[in-house]
Amino acid sequence: MADEGALKAVAEAEAAVNSQGEIVRTLKEAVKAGSGDKAAVDAAVEQLKALKVTLAEKQQAAGIEPAPTGGRPAKEKAAKPDKDKGSEGGAGGKTTKKETKLGLSHPKATEFTDWYTELCVSSELISYYDVSGCYVLRPWAYAMWEVAQTFFDAKIKAMGVQNAYFPLFITEDVLSKEKDHVEGFAPEVAWVTRAGDTPLEKPIAIRPTSETVMYPYYAQWIRSHRDLPLRLNQWTNVVRWEFKYPTPFIRSREFLWQEGHTAFATKEEADAEVAAILELYRRVYEEVMAVPVTPGKKSTAEQFAGALYTTTVEAFIPETGKAIQGATSHCLGQNFSKMFNIEFETEERTKQLVWQNSWGFTTRTIGVMIMTHGDDKGLVLPPRAAPKQVVIITIPNSKTTPEGLAAMTEKAAELHAALEAAGVRVVSDTRENYTPGWKYNHWELKGVPVRLELGPKDMEKGVAVLARRDTGTKEEAAWGDVAGRMPSLLETIQADMYTAARAKYDACWKQVTTWDEFMEAINGRNMALAPWADEVEVENDVKKRSAVGELQGAKTLCIPFKQPEMPPGTLCFASGKPAKNWALWGRSY
Amino acid sequence: MADEGALKAVAEAEAAVNSQGEIVRTLKEAVKAGSGDKAAVDAAVEQLKALKVTLAEKQQAAGIEPAPTGGRPAKEKAAKPDKDKGSEGGAGGKTTKKETKLGLSHPKATEFTDWYTELCVSSELISYYDVSGCYVLRPWAYAMWEVAQTFFDAKIKAMGVQNAYFPLFITEDVLSKEKDHVEGFAPEVAWVTRAGDTPLEKPIAIRPTSETVMYPYYAQWIRSHRDLPLRLNQWTNVVRWEFKYPTPFIRSREFLWQEGHTAFATKEEADAEVAAILELYRRVYEEVMAVPVTPGKKSTAEQFAGALYTTTVEAFIPETGKAIQGATSHCLGQNFSKMFNIEFETEERTKQLVWQNSWGFTTRTIGVMIMTHGDDKGLVLPPRAAPKQVVIITIPNSKTTPEGLAAMTEKAAELHAALEAAGVRVVSDTRENYTPGWKYNHWELKGVPVRLELGPKDMEKGVAVLARRDTGTKEEAAWGDVAGRMPSLLETIQADMYTAARAKYDACWKQVTTWDEFMEAINGRNMALAPWADEVEVENDVKKRSAVGELQGAKTLCIPFKQPEMPPGTLCFASGKPAKNWALWGRSY
Repeated sequence: MADEGALKAVAEAEAAVNSQGEIVRTLKEAVKAGSGDKAAVDAAVEQLKALKVTLAEKQQAAGIEPAPTGGRPAKEKAAKPDKDKGSEGGAGGKTTKKETKLGLSHPKATEFTDWYTELCVSSELISYYDVSGCYVLRPWAYAMWEVAQTFFDAKIKAMGVQNAYFPLFITEDVLSKEKDHVEGFAPEVAWVTRAGDTPLEKPIAIRPTSETVMYPYYAQWIRSHRDLPLRLNQWTNVVRWEFKYPTPFIRSREFLWQEGHTAFATKEEADAEVAAILELYRRVYEEVMAVPVTPGKKSTAEQFAGALYTTTVEAFIPETGKAIQGATSHCLGQNFSKMFNIEFETEERTKQLVWQNSWGFTTRTIGVMIMTHGDDKGLVLPPRAAPKQVVIITIPNSKTTPEGLAAMTEKAAELHAALEAAGVRVVSDTRENYTPGWKYNHWELKGVPVRLELGPKDMEKGVAVLARRDTGTKEEAAWGDVAGRMPSLLETIQADMYTAARAKYDACWKQVTTWDEFMEAINGRNMALAPWADEVEVENDVKKRSAVGELQGAKTLCIPFKQPEMPPGTLCFASGKPAKNWALWGRSY
Repeated sequence: MADEGALKAVAEAEAAVNSQGEIVRTLKEAVKAGSGDKAAVDAAVEQLKALKVTLAEKQQAAGIEPAPTGGRPAKEKAAKPDKDKGSEGGAGGKTTKKETKLGLSHPKATEFTDWYTELCVSSELISYYDVSGCYVLRPWAYAMWEVAQTFFDAKIKAMGVQNAYFPLFITEDVLSKEKDHVEGFAPEVAWVTRAGDTPLEKPIAIRPTSETVMYPYYAQWIRSHRDLPLRLNQWTNVVRWEFKYPTPFIRSREFLWQEGHTAFATKEEADAEVAAILELYRRVYEEVMAVPVTPGKKSTAEQFAGALYTTTVEAFIPETGKAIQGATSHCLGQNFSKMFNIEFETEERTKQLVWQNSWGFTTRTIGVMIMTHGDDKGLVLPPRAAPKQVVIITIPNSKTTPEGLAAMTEKAAELHAALEAAGVRVVSDTRENYTPGWKYNHWELKGVPVRLELGPKDMEKGVAVLARRDTGTKEEAAWGDVAGRMPSLLETIQADMYTAARAKYDACWKQVTTWDEFMEAINGRNMALAPWADEVEVENDVKKRSAVGELQGAKTLCIPFKQPEMPPGTLCFASGKPAKNWALWGRSY
């Protein structure tokens, strides 16, 4: 039996190999993309080999066999040892070996990036895949996506939006129809050039987004003002073959999203919808995911390729000092309707171009939620987003008789049924080959908001203990009260988690007026709200000047809708020109 | 203003161009695939050009402008004039012009193929797309898919299946892991070879199905008998670049489906799930879509590439005399677990390979439903599948006063609200620029099961008229009874539609024992249930011998689970060898 120290050494060696593997892959892609350095790849590969040797040594010391072969190519497997193996009833049976493997080896505060990827894998949200930048969304993650879908889908249907499905493929002709748009996406488009052994006459693109797929049809379907508004949405996968460092949920080459595409007779209606949808995105983040965001407008430099204007909700990760774009709702104006001839006849029988919007949110939402709430024990899920809200664990001890155990199991089943009947998503961990302690760790790692414990003393007293994942606090509840109290306890947790996250978010919000204050805020891992001239040149200049060593420059996150007062004569913090508005700036993902 | 005859001539010319366009495309693809004849393409193109000239003439005669440009390439547009343009408030405003365009120009009985494609387009289910074999699923179709999804998803979740999402892309190495499997799919795989301007180091396949995507992970996740069963499902798009003639819903290069992939410790458990899932597929067809099917096992020649055995539900289209595979549930045995090393440790600490299943149903389900129930007026939707179950149409006449109209509109709104509160999916067509007659036709084309009419006489009597789409029969209902009676009326329609379809299906079911009887049955557009030797060679032989002129040969649809008695000494109808079982044969899609 290996000791804990040896196993921790293996986990660390695994993480090092994992991390170095990503570096190698990124460098290789940079070379492929023409921007990389072959020598750097070779050096990184050498380092990877050395780390693999170390890993093998640590594994041998701990008495662990290397991962089995499976179907993944050997190089991938070595670079990405599956940390999640055996986390749910692994090979060892009733040993304590895997119990010691449960903890996270990287603290959130000091090793955020490693903490995040390790957490995503160990909590069984994602698995790495042998096509770089693609990930497997495991049931625990997918169930959260279903929660977000269910919330948003019902809301947009109530607004009159209909779901549809447009093809995955786009011809080059159609993709290139809107100039700014295609320039924005062309470098990231994946092209199909062959079917079986037959080369295609013309290459076909995989959709990075569906504006150009859909709008030729809008031109056909819309004839009269009576055909408006036309409001369609689809839940799909899209592909953007980015060459930047991929991160689970946050930046992946294939991701899941919804994309809404609507057409209106007037700009006023389009504007109103842009705002209504952004408000739904705010609610997905703040009310479902318990993640605070700032709604606002994107600067010209940051808006969607082809849009008239873009609105956004922006989240922030205090540990990294980086902001992250949550979801965007665009007014496309008449840019696309001009290119695709989407005209309608008004009541007065004149022809007019429609006003269009497009809007989307993605599986990134889950990543932002994980980053916001997770801790060193694992995920901390807000109850509304949690696939399971309560986990029931019985804790017999060495004195528990068979009859006592039977009574305990029966009571657990009763409470399970009562909670389910109360609309609570509940799971009972009845596995006998794990200790209660291991189960506690396991479900803490998975982030379940409430643990219901039922032990010998609780059986005597007729109570259960309810332990909160977010605060760790425990309270007793009489059996008869458990189901009745749980919904409000879950809502309390939801609210408390939001409040806690909001406090951290607000603490990173610095209002500044000078360049020095700005740099101090940014370098101190904050967002900076600063008066500025609202010019692309100024933003580009700030980006350059605020890059410090390896740290990227800051850019505008948004121009928040809620603007502080702007005293007359206020000057741009960066250019000294007259300020036009307050923009929120930050380094960002 | 064009007369009806002229518009009918346009519709016919459009259909001819449309149909010839498909022929040209198919021939071109055959040439691309290496199996076609260039001269045949040229001849077909010439014919297409001539038909386009005819169309332009007819359009001119009818005073119709050609379709607008939109974003589709010119050749596609000409080959696929959008018949659905203007069907919902088109360019003409309050003219009767579009009203005359509503009817279908092809009768189901005699011109089935044209009837079907015209119906799919005119009823606003699909639009053709400029990548051949891909279609737009419009909201009316997508809503039906959502109905099927909701039904099936809840059922499998209740069985313990969890949803997940695996990537769209597969590396060549992984795709080729199971030999039979890759041979089955390789000719239809679409390959991505380039991202932006960067060639990929190795081409990457788009999933035709996800066995090889998922199973490397099963090998990692499954270690102990306690990890079993592992039951995952995903709702995705898949791509099979077939070179056969594409048909909306029935055969498309990209389609939507669910694919379940499960692993068990024993064959018995796997067998039981295969049957349980097939039963759900039967219910999707029979209970939701009101389409009769025969459940059974596929012959060796017809089973899934890589499966141990395949079960299927088989539908039949009497008008064409062709069967159609509805959905399949496969037992993969240990074929894949062997290839992907999916082993588990038993309670006795021995290693064993898991038993696996995979199962899927697709948007084809909608196509089969349309073919089964549609008539010369349009779709006929079974209430459970219908996006809208009731359409409310007010029918004011020339004597209706403004007050009378207001009262009628108000009553319609009241009934709408009452129906909605009763859980009925209801739509009110309140458009004032269409006549009630046009609205009747429109919603008949869309297949809504019940039309609720409210006219001046009904207002006097305090009743509404309920007209059934399936039978055309009408009944009166007092206002206070409408919402109460509707759910049972809808269930009656559902049951009646199934009964009617079942009667037609059964009439095409012929039990035969000799070759002559067999050929008579098949050539008479029936299925033939025949005793046979259950040998691949015999099936191949029957396929060849039963091909008559342009008609393809018959193949086994399934070996029905419900087997007639087999008297001792019964011989195979085709080979004269001893018969092993009764197989259902037919020509098929």
